[in-house]
Parts: sequence; C-alpha cells; structure tokens
Amino acid sequence: MARDVKKVVLAYSGGLDTSVILKWLQTTYNCEVITFTADLGQGEELEPARKKAELLGIKPENIFIEDVREEFVRDYVFPMFRANALYEGLYLLGTSIARPLIAKKQIEIARKMGADAVSHGATGKGNDQVRFELGYYALEPDITVIAPWREWDLTSRTRLLEFAEAHQIPIAKDKRGEAPFSVDANLLHSSSEGKVLEDPADDAPEYVYQRTISPEEAPDEATLITIAFDKGDAVAINGEALSPATLLTKLNELGKANGIGRLDLVENRFVGMKSRGIYETPGGTILLAAHRGIESITLDRGAAHLKDELMPRYAELIYNGFWFSPEREMLQAAIDYSQAYVTGEVTVKLYKGNATVIGRKSPYSLYNQELVTFEEGAVAYDHRDAAGFIKLNALRLRTLGSRARKISE
Amino acid sequence: MARDVKKVVLAYSGGLDTSVILKWLQTTYNCEVITFTADLGQGEELEPARKKAELLGIKPENIFIEDVREEFVRDYVFPMFRANALYEGLYLLGTSIARPLIAKKQIEIARKMGADAVSHGATGKGNDQVRFELGYYALEPDITVIAPWREWDLTSRTRLLEFAEAHQIPIAKDKRGEAPFSVDANLLHSSSEGKVLEDPADDAPEYVYQRTISPEEAPDEATLITIAFDKGDAVAINGEALSPATLLTKLNELGKANGIGRLDLVENRFVGMKSRGIYETPGGTILLAAHRGIESITLDRGAAHLKDELMPRYAELIYNGFWFSPEREMLQAAIDYSQAYVTGEVTVKLYKGNATVIGRKSPYSLYNQELVTFEEGAVAYDHRDAAGFIKLNALRLRTLGSRARKISE
Amino acid sequence: MARDVKKVVLAYSGGLDTSVILKWLQTTYNCEVITFTADLGQGEELEPARKKAELLGIKPENIFIEDVREEFVRDYVFPMFRANALYEGLYLLGTSIARPLIAKKQIEIARKMGADAVSHGATGKGNDQVRFELGYYALEPDITVIAPWREWDLTSRTRLLEFAEAHQIPIAKDKRGEAPFSVDANLLHSSSEGKVLEDPADDAPEYVYQRTISPEEAPDEATLITIAFDKGDAVAINGEALSPATLLTKLNELGKANGIGRLDLVENRFVGMKSRGIYETPGGTILLAAHRGIESITLDRGAAHLKDELMPRYAELIYNGFWFSPEREMLQAAIDYSQAYVTGEVTVKLYKGNATVIGRKSPYSLYNQELVTFEEGAVAYDHRDAAGFIKLNALRLRTLGSRARKISE
Amino acid sequence: MARDVKKVVLAYSGGLDTSVILKWLQTTYNCEVITFTADLGQGEELEPARKKAELLGIKPENIFIEDVREEFVRDYVFPMFRANALYEGLYLLGTSIARPLIAKKQIEIARKMGADAVSHGATGKGNDQVRFELGYYALEPDITVIAPWREWDLTSRTRLLEFAEAHQIPIAKDKRGEAPFSVDANLLHSSSEGKVLEDPADDAPEYVYQRTISPEEAPDEATLITIAFDKGDAVAINGEALSPATLLTKLNELGKANGIGRLDLVENRFVGMKSRGIYETPGGTILLAAHRGIESITLDRGAAHLKDELMPRYAELIYNGFWFSPEREMLQAAIDYSQAYVTGEVTVKLYKGNATVIGRKSPYSLYNQELVTFEEGAVAYDHRDAAGFIKLNALRLRTLGSRARKISE
Repeated sequence: MARDVKKVVLAYSGGLDTSVILKWLQTTYNCEVITFTADLGQGEELEPARKKAELLGIKPENIFIEDVREEFVRDYVFPMFRANALYEGLYLLGTSIARPLIAKKQIEIARKMGADAVSHGATGKGNDQVRFELGYYALEPDITVIAPWREWDLTSRTRLLEFAEAHQIPIAKDKRGEAPFSVDANLLHSSSEGKVLEDPADDAPEYVYQRTISPEEAPDEATLITIAFDKGDAVAINGEALSPATLLTKLNELGKANGIGRLDLVENRFVGMKSRGIYETPGGTILLAAHRGIESITLDRGAAHLKDELMPRYAELIYNGFWFSPEREMLQAAIDYSQAYVTGEVTVKLYKGNATVIGRKSPYSLYNQELVTFEEGAVAYDHRDAAGFIKLNALRLRTLGSRARKISE
Repeated sequence: MARDVKKVVLAYSGGLDTSVILKWLQTTYNCEVITFTADLGQGEELEPARKKAELLGIKPENIFIEDVREEFVRDYVFPMFRANALYEGLYLLGTSIARPLIAKKQIEIARKMGADAVSHGATGKGNDQVRFELGYYALEPDITVIAPWREWDLTSRTRLLEFAEAHQIPIAKDKRGEAPFSVDANLLHSSSEGKVLEDPADDAPEYVYQRTISPEEAPDEATLITIAFDKGDAVAINGEALSPATLLTKLNELGKANGIGRLDLVENRFVGMKSRGIYETPGGTILLAAHRGIESITLDRGAAHLKDELMPRYAELIYNGFWFSPEREMLQAAIDYSQAYVTGEVTVKLYKGNATVIGRKSPYSLYNQELVTFEEGAVAYDHRDAAGFIKLNALRLRTLGSRARKISE
Repeated sequence: MARDVKKVVLAYSGGLDTSVILKWLQTTYNCEVITFTADLGQGEELEPARKKAELLGIKPENIFIEDVREEFVRDYVFPMFRANALYEGLYLLGTSIARPLIAKKQIEIARKMGADAVSHGATGKGNDQVRFELGYYALEPDITVIAPWREWDLTSRTRLLEFAEAHQIPIAKDKRGEAPFSVDANLLHSSSEGKVLEDPADDAPEYVYQRTISPEEAPDEATLITIAFDKGDAVAINGEALSPATLLTKLNELGKANGIGRLDLVENRFVGMKSRGIYETPGGTILLAAHRGIESITLDRGAAHLKDELMPRYAELIYNGFWFSPEREMLQAAIDYSQAYVTGEVTVKLYKGNATVIGRKSPYSLYNQELVTFEEGAVAYDHRDAAGFIKLNALRLRTLGSRARKISE
Repeated sequence: MARDVKKVVLAYSGGLDTSVILKWLQTTYNCEVITFTADLGQGEELEPARKKAELLGIKPENIFIEDVREEFVRDYVFPMFRANALYEGLYLLGTSIARPLIAKKQIEIARKMGADAVSHGATGKGNDQVRFELGYYALEPDITVIAPWREWDLTSRTRLLEFAEAHQIPIAKDKRGEAPFSVDANLLHSSSEGKVLEDPADDAPEYVYQRTISPEEAPDEATLITIAFDKGDAVAINGEALSPATLLTKLNELGKANGIGRLDLVENRFVGMKSRGIYETPGGTILLAAHRGIESITLDRGAAHLKDELMPRYAELIYNGFWFSPEREMLQAAIDYSQAYVTGEVTVKLYKGNATVIGRKSPYSLYNQELVTFEEGAVAYDHRDAAGFIKLNALRLRTLGSRARKISE
C-alpha cells in the first residue's frame, strides 16, 4: 500500500464517499489529487462537485468536469444495442457500459497531467472495480491503481463518518443515517441494490424506483411512437432527428411516463457471488424492442441467428469489464458489419410497462409479401422445391432411423 | 405422385381442409385412410371430428382420437422450457413444439395398423411441413409421405370448395368466404398469420387475438401468483400441485385474464422467407419468466451462461423441425443435467400484459446474503482477493496495451 | 426443364463430361453456349480447352479462359486460412473454397455477355452443385441455373459415351474405360473419391495420390523453411517475397517433396450422406501449421479462443457453399480484425509427412520471457495475485460445494 | 499466513521440492503432515517416496501411496478423449487432466484423516496451482489451502538448497545444479518447459524429449495397428482387450517407437501470460486420430458438428482447472450422450511421427455405400431433390441479392 504515487486521477462524484476517498488519498499517499467528474446523464448537477473539490483543497487546474453524454450514447450505448445485448437474458447492462468510458477519460487526463495513478470509489465485492481497473490497465498498462475500498480500514459507516468529520468533509443530513440501498445512475439506467433489497424473496418496495413510475400509475391510454433507425442506430423519434443522447433522453421520458423498463433481477457477478439488483432502463427497454423490430425485416436469417448466438458472450464480456479487449472488438466488428442496412422505421406502443412493436417498414426490407402469401402464383417459390429440401434435410435422420431399427431388431 | 400406397395415416382436424385432403387421398391414391385427431389443447371438441370422418367413409376402427395434452406438456413443452427457449429472441415456439408429437403418434398408428404412408395438411411454404416430415422420416425412415398441398391442383380457395362440394364434404357457413387469416392452436399457444396480417407495417387488428384479452381490458389490480418448481419443471400454483397440462391450462387462464403473452413478430422461416405472425402464449410467457426466476437463485453462473449460449441453437433446432435429432438430444442432455436443483418457488406479478418476477426462494438457493452484504465481516470473502483477481485478468490486456504503446511510438 | 434459355455460361474444363454437357445444352435448350475455363492451378493446360470448345462450335468471342490463380489465393484461400479453418477437424476445404470464385466469374461473364443462364458439371449427389448454385443465386438472384446431371438421362457411363460419339465429341483413350475414381484439383489441393475408394475400411491404394509422394519415399533429411507473415497472410519463404499464388505453389512443391498433406477422410456432405475422400493439400498443411505458429505469439488469448470457437461454424459455412452469405462475411470481419498484428516469421521443419513448427518470432510478439521465467524478480507479476485470482474463481464452486454438502447431510 | 492448521495433506512426489515443502509446512505451520503420492504413470518408483517421507518424520499411517492409473485413464482421460479435446487447436491437455484427480484424492484423505488443510508444490505463475485449488475448493469448500510457492521466501534455487541442507533433506547429486528445464509427467504425456526452452524462436534441443524417439530415429517400416472402440472408449488393440491404463501404456509404447506425439507450443496460460511448452503425448496422439476415425462413420453430422463447436470451450474448461464445474459436467453429459454407438474398429498407420487413419468399420456405421455411389439406381436418393434443397437454401440469399441490386441501381 505504501506505493509511491505522485499524482492520482480520481473518479469523483462529489458525494460523501468519493470526498472521503479524496482526503484519504491525500493523507495516505501524500499525493496530488486530480478529480474527474463526468456528466453521464445521472441527473445530478456537476458544479457542486467542483465547489466541493475546491473546498477539499483541489487546485482549479486539477478539477476536470466533462459532459460526456453524447460520447457515452454514441460510442458505448449504441454499439451495445446493435448487439441486442442482454446479460443473463434480462439485464440491459446499464452500469457496465458506463465504466469503460470513465476509465478512458481518467487515463486521458492522467496522460495529459502527468499523473501516475488512478483511483475509483467502487467496493471490493462488486463488478465495477473490475470494469474500472481492466479499462485502466488495458489503456495504460503501467498505471498504478488505487482502490481505497480494498485498502483502507474505513470499512464501516461509522468509521467513514468519523474520518469525514475529522477532515472537515461536509456531510449532507440525509447521509448521516444509513442509506436503505445504494444507487448507480447514468443516461441509460439507474440501479439499486443492497440493504432492503438483499432478500430476493421479498418484493422491492415502491420507493426504490426513481426513474420510472409504476405501470399502475401510468396513463390508461397507450402512447404510439415511431423510431427511425439508420445503420442500426436510432436517429429520430416521430420524425424528429435527434442526437444520440437527446434521443435516449426522450425515450427515457416516454418510458418513465409509461412505467416501462423495471427489472428485479438476481444476477451472477464476475467476482463469484449472486446479487440482487433493481434496474430501471426506460429508454433502453424501448430501444431494444424497436431495434429487434427493425432488424426483423432488414436482417437476413443467417446474420440474425449468428448475432443471437454471439450475443450472450458479447454481453458477458461487457458485464465482466472486457470492453477494451480484442474479443469484444472482434465481436463488434462482426455485429457492426451486419448493420449496414438496418435502416427504417418501427412503431412502438407504450402502455403500462409494455413496449410492443406493432409495425415496421424499411426501404431495405427483406420481407417479401409476394413470397409469403398462401395463394398460388407467387414468384420465385415452387412448392415442389420444399419436397426436395425436406428430403435432403431428412436424409441423415433416415439413416439414423434405419440404424436404430436395425439395432432394435 | 403415382406412388403405390395402401394405407395412409392422416393428421385429421375435422375441419374443411383436412376433410378435403381425406377425400383427395382416397380418390387420388385409391388407398385406405386412417385418421388421427389429437387433443393438444387447441380448444375444440374432438367428437365432431369422429362424426365427420365416419361421414366421409372412414371405418370406425380407422378413426383414432387421443387426448395427448399431458404427454404434450410433460414431454415436449416442459423440456423446452427448461432451456428458456426463444426463437429469434422472442418466439416461444408454440406451433413448432407440437408437430413432433403429432408425427410420433401418426407413426405409432401406422406401425400398429400396418400403414405404409402418412399425410398432413401443412402447406408448401411453411415450416410445419418440414417439422411433420422430419419427424416421420426420423422415426420411420422408409415411410411414404404425402403432402397434398405440394401435390394437388386445389391451390385456390375456389377449386378447394368445388372439390369439397363435388365430394359431399360439408362446408361450414363461415368457411365459404375467405378466412381473414389462418390459425394454429394448442395448449401452449395460438398463432395467427396471413391475409390481413401480411403487411408488417400495419398493426394487427384486435379481432385477431383469441386467447388473450388486451392489456387495456385487463383488470386494474395486479394478480400475484406463486409457482413451485421441481427439477426445472413447474409443479404447483399457489401451493396446489397440478399435473403438467392442468398447470399450463391454469397459467393460460391467468395470462389471458391479465392480457399477457401477445407477440407480433416478423420471423425467418426455415424454408427461406420472412413471415409475420401474431402469437398468443399467455401461460408460456408467465412460465418462462418464472423459470428464469427460479434458475436465477439455483443455477450456478457457469451452468446459466452455458445454457444461455446454447439456447439460440436449441431453439433453432426446434423451430426447424429437428426435435428428433441427435444434436437436439445432446443439448437436452446438457440442459436437463443442469436442472437437478432448479427447485423452489417464484412469485410473479401479473398486471396488464406484464409478468414480473418479484420474489424467489429455494432450499437449494446459491444466493448468499452474507457474501453479498456491503458490510465487513462477511465470511469467505476477502476484499484483497479482488486485487489479485483483477490483476491476473488484466495481465493479458496490459501486455496488449504495452504492445500498442510500442507500436504507436 | 423446357425452360426458355437464350445464352448459358458453362463452367467448362475441356474434359469429356463438360464437353458432353456443352453439346447437351446446345441440343436440349437450343441456346448459345459460352464457355468459361479457369486456371485455378489444377495443373492442366488451358489452350486445349479453347481448341475443343471451338471444335464443338463455340464462337471465339464466346470462349473465356482466365488465369485466376492469384485472385483465388489472395481473396479466397488466404482469408480462409486466417481462420485456421478445418471442416470436421481435419479437412482443409480445398474443393469448397474454389467454387465461389468460379461461380462469381460465370456471373460476371453472364452479365457482360447478356446471358440468362449458367451451368456446371457437378453431380446431383455432391456438395459442389450446392456451392456453385448458392454462389450463382446470391450474386444474380434471377439467373437460370442448369444442372445437367440432375436433368438429363445420360446417367450411366455407357449412355454418356454414346451421346459423345453421336455428337462427334472426341474421347481420349483413357476415358473409354471407367476411371477408378474421380478427381478435383486446384492450387490448394486435389481430392479423389468414388469407386475404388468407396469402402472406408480399405486403405487407399498408393496410385490414388497425385500431388504428394508418400512419407516413405520422402528424403531422409528434414527441410527447414521460414515463412514470413504480414497481417495474417504468408508473404515470403526463406526471405524471398512471393505473390500469394507463387507462394502457395512453392509450398506445394516443398510439401509434395516431403510427403506432407495427405488425408484419408470420411466426411458428412451437406446433402445428407457420408462420403470418403482422399485429399492432398501439401502447401496448405504447411501453411496452417505456420499460421497457427505465428498466431501463437501475436494473438491475445481472448482473440485466439474466440477464433477457435467460431472456426467450426466458419468452416461449415464454406463447406456448405455459403461463402457469399452475410454470416460468413460477419465472421470474416471478426477474423480479419484479429489479424492486424499477426506478423512475423515461423520456422517449419518438413520431414516425411510432418510439418512441425520449431520457432517463431515477431516484432509484435506478446510472449514475454521476463513474465514467464520461474525466478523471482519478474516485472508485473506478483505471485500473491494468484491467490486472489484463484479465490474469486473458486467462489462459485465453493458455494456449489457447500450446497452439495448440505444436500448430502 | 499465520493461519491455524492442524493437519495438512500434501501432494508429495518424493522429490526435492516437495520434500522441502514438507519440512517447511512442519516448521512454519507446526502441523502434522500427511503425504499423498500417486502413481499416475509418471514412470517413477513410488516406494522411495515412502522411505523419504519416513525419513522426514512422517508417521507410517500418514503416508498414502496409491496406484491411480486405471482411475486416471478411465474417469479422466477417456471422457476427455470422447470430446476430441484440443486446447488452442493442438494441446492434448496431458497435465491439466491429471490435476483434478490428485485434488480429489487429497480431499478424500483429508476427510478420512480429519485434516483441515491441503497443499501442493505448484508455482505461483502456472496453471497447476489453479487446477489443484479449484478442485480442492469445489470438493471441500472450507478447506484451507497452502500454496508454499506463493507464501515462502525460498524463491531462489540457492535458498531452497540452503533450507534443504539445514533440515537434513537429502539432495540428489543431479539436483544440486539447476535443471535445464522442468518436467511434468503422467500416463498421458510428459511436458517440459522453462529455462533452455524459454525463447520460442529457438528449436527445442533433442535432449528435452524423454518419452518419444525422434521421427528420424523411428523405424523405416510403418506399423499398422487396429484399435477397437466401445461407446467412444478404446477397448482393444489388435484384437486384444485391454484395461484403460494398459491400453494407453501400450499406445504409448507404439507411439514412442514411431516418433509420434511431439508438440512444440506457445500457449496462453489461464493466469494471463504466454508460455512455451514441449509436450510428448505418444499414445494420446494415436488415440485422438483413431477416435475421430471411428466417429467419422458412427456419428451423425448434427452430433459431430455440435461436438466440434463445443470442443474449444470444453478444452478451455479443463485447461483452466474447471473439471469439477457444472458447465464441464453439462458438456460431458452432451458428449457422452453422443457416444452410444461410437463402436467399431479403426486401423492406424504409425510411421515416423505420423498417426494416420487408413481404415474404419463398425456394426453401427452410418456410411452407406449405396447412397454415395455415382451410378444410377441408388436407393433413397433422388437427384431432383437436390434442386429443391438448393432452391430453398438459396431463397434468402436471392432475396439479399435482389436487395443489393436494387440498392446499387
């Protein structure tokens, strides 16, 4: 722990925990601290973080605050949605996908400022420590990584508060007591876990949800929207072209208002344990449905099925923190290749928790009404071809059947 | 076509189309026809089929009617749900999974009755012809298969009706006109496709739905149910032990009443074209959610992820008609192996189209609250282990990072 | 069969069979025939094919002869070798990989010459008909395909010879009798199958082999060669830069002389039956070993393992004739992405059937001698990290172990 | 490190290193040491290990020596060969597959003797520590694991020898100096790595090889053998029924004499680095070829291709030490299911490094000579079926082709 560190770039939220880390880094490592605070769409003001950093003695030139929402959605969220990625069949990876971007920004600042270390506020039991640190190491292999939660002895709430008081760190009133659960949020989702949520047999209390109203509270009238896609990415809602982050923000509003995107999940962490999380991904839930909708008419079966088979692996890589890995990039190359004509419009019905595709059209549609019709006269399809198709597909099964009969005789 | 056939076992619904086929087989092949009518839970009386067969000249001993609902759910639906099978990410394979059972029954009757041929009423453009015939050939490699829709010239509605009239086949009044779409149904689902549904840009009209009320019409109060599982199969609802078919029937009622299980899908057929289907799988939709729920606490990550990776292939095999194939059986062996401790209870909330898992418990739960808690003192987990875990997972990425830096220099 | 065809582009070898096809097309379809003869490195003169075509009445402007060896190796063989493709674990896909190129050339000529049909000489039981025709259809969806072996009645050797005589097609003396087996050859390999080779219990007679001497006849001294790679493709042998086709030709000579590349295989055809083939791929066998060798030091584990998992699917696609398919192209995109730094030199020892990698080096090597050494003091590796790595990898297994113990108690 | 340990079961070879570990355990942990020495076919006498253990103060009842060769081959090697497992395309996993068995035996002894810890002699940089310890933890989740090489300070040869001398541990003369490389051996293979082998650009010196003569030294005459299989496992050589271990021993002799089974490989370790190993697997190399040979006629295509696709994952699991994991067992269930009719005889030609299958036969053969013959009259195959088969396989490609043409227009 007594590693020699001169300058450290800390992922700083401005909250109590990372403020304590800030001080702890200064006092333990006797090093210069640079703070990086990102607007990922978590829904918090950033300027208070600047003020607080200054208050804690950080020099203005060492305070970095950046709005990365467009980069986040364009370069991380959208590529992931091209893959229809779901971890363990259900989770839209909202926390996982933000970590690599934060890691990348910290490393960029470290290079610019000549820092030799980076630090984050993730605990020693979660996935986020892995995601941050794999990102750091992949981008800057010789960087020193400081993970205070794995190093320090402030491992109870009491000790943490004592340390804060001892170092004149302001403590918001509502932080004095124990939070009933912990939260992570960005433009894609918010997650809640721990404490009152720890028993997977118990329903999550309604007050846990922050980003969606409940389906019960949602309007009794459905909302229909049309999402336009270009090469696999959403580009417009109801005819209005929107930037990636603006579009996702708009989808979040629509999803929230219609009670869409809640998930109560017990998942398997990379570090080896099961945990329970409550996720709210209103816009992402709509986006996934719509993307599958536009793919359904523009993607060939071979491409679609290959994507489906690769998806669990791809999602696992992102969940485990391997965004900056050759295998994720290889899969991305395959996925992106498939999206060249995933262009068109999808109509989605939003109603009390449901996001249902009810129409899709595309200039590149592979759906051929003439082919599919029951009536005779369709072009390019001779019913008798099916006989040969079945016969040859059956040939190996018939050979097996003959063997089975011979054996049983 | 002038194949020599003595006795043919026909999958007979009692409807107009298969009645025409019955007559056509008699007149074209000059052969004895045996009818097989199965109760798969399609929701139709079977005795009228017997009457109609008799009317068309089938000898009583050649009429086979069987209630196969329990066998269907126990040996086909449940094994498939152990896999969490979804075709193209969304379709619960309701039609696909029924075909192998019908094929198997026809072959059994053919053997018993000394028949040398089997026949079905599936068209020449769909998947069902493949599913029936691959089943026939796998189980009885030398059987003769007659697929009237690929052979005859009754390829328009007009000609079909003319044939029916010419052969004194009774035509229900509502069959005179064109049906606005075609339907398949069994205990797992009903599907609707064709005609008014052919344009994937247009929303499906409400009258298409037959097995579910709309979410809008569903009650304003949520219904909570508890489903018990034993070794991966559902065995009880709200504490009441139920046989497989009874249980699925009950889930269907619950799903129907809550507007659950509708799907509007453009899918890729095995025969090479895209088609659009409206599926209603009320009970199955609840069952999938619940099964994933019980797996989430009883299945290890390694098993769960392997299952997720194998699933698309497994679903594709069933969709394409390869139920009776060694590769489906191999995958089933792997899947079934994983289910030994998938036992416990899941609470599902049913509300206006949503089937949401809100609680799960099991005597075999792998969820360990002590492990996951944020506080210190947890057993079996040392935060510092995470450092080594990350370091070694990062090692190859750091090596790559060093190379990248060397190259860019 | 009585399809209306005006001009057909025939894949013409100049041999007896395709000459008969040529005449049969003229007489059956009463259409203009354009011949396409490619030099794929099969080791035959092409000018006799021109003479023979002229003799059979083809106008000079309708005779196309092209040396496609460089294109073949550069755009088909090398991309496939980037994947280390082996069908069923052993077969280097020598025949499969040539068919798409021939199909593409035929379609190009058809477009240029305004032809409305294409034809080939592949039989109705093999894979090649599928490979040719999937290529035709993918590139020119409305083309008419004529497959004489599936259409005509010249299905015995006797009838074929009678037809040839009746149409003044010259018959080489050695073609009068039955060939003891049939052969396909190109720059990558030659294959032999049928007749004397049909019983898989019997060893292939030595006279079947045409492109390799036997290991027994090969020199008693090993030959060492160094192959240089650039971005996954071989570019030089023993320091001499060579074009793709020249390089493969050179490897073929080296392989032949050392008895390398023979394979006696029972394989599964796409059309549903098993067949037995004798393959000789001297240069390809060396190339695969060398490519794996250079990848072993330049490819990261994540990339390497993903490639290994995707390979069987990729090889199957090529074997089955799906070269021009989105899924093959997606996989190729992933594979090609991985090859950016697969650059360096591999030393291979050639000796009596063995091609053994004995050394590899690269400016982009990821092998780090300092890391791997047993002694202390190695950079970047702390033995204690392994403890944490193992502990967290074991965590889920321990949880399972605890459950197992609880159950057995 | 100051963990409280009462009794530890040490995997003890009787060599210098594990003797030092024995003493170090006694002195550091002040605990009772139980030694376990297994005959895995490594080719060393076991009684000297007993003597040495006694000499070092181990009580006779604490010395366990067991011949586990039959169990090793029957329950570990053979199941793995059913999968045709190759790590990174080439490595037969000889070291990896032995570790789980040793771990299992140690745990069994620990239970029987009431020991609370286990220990092994694997270093902190290799895969074996992971394999041992994952095995320990899976089977006995609360066991204490002592890995001396990660704990002690005897990290140089000099210190190790000093410790040995200080504790009266006998040092064989040839152990005084540095070994030029390190070795692991069992009935399946021997591996050599380190020191003189560390530069992957340099050929391995001939003296490294211990279990095979070189192809150059092997006889000029080929040796033909016939291996009989029953349900996927080899059961006889040249008609003589042999137990698993006896059979593998016999294959090793045959392989050794013919220079078969050498591999010079740079591989990716689970702990994140690349390493270079020289492997000799004479019998296993023959066995793999023969097993693929018998599968080629008895396994259906669907089963065979699924096996090929699952294999890399299966091999990786074994390499990484996850033998006792649900996912390995699930894959094993699938693989074993496929082997029910993998029964018959394969003839293999052994010649100077080559193990070539030249014939195979089986009472359950799926190879059908009648089907494959070129001539007319073959049963069960109508050439015209191929037209329909191709047409429907092409349908989606034609649809794509039409779209491509429309786009380019």
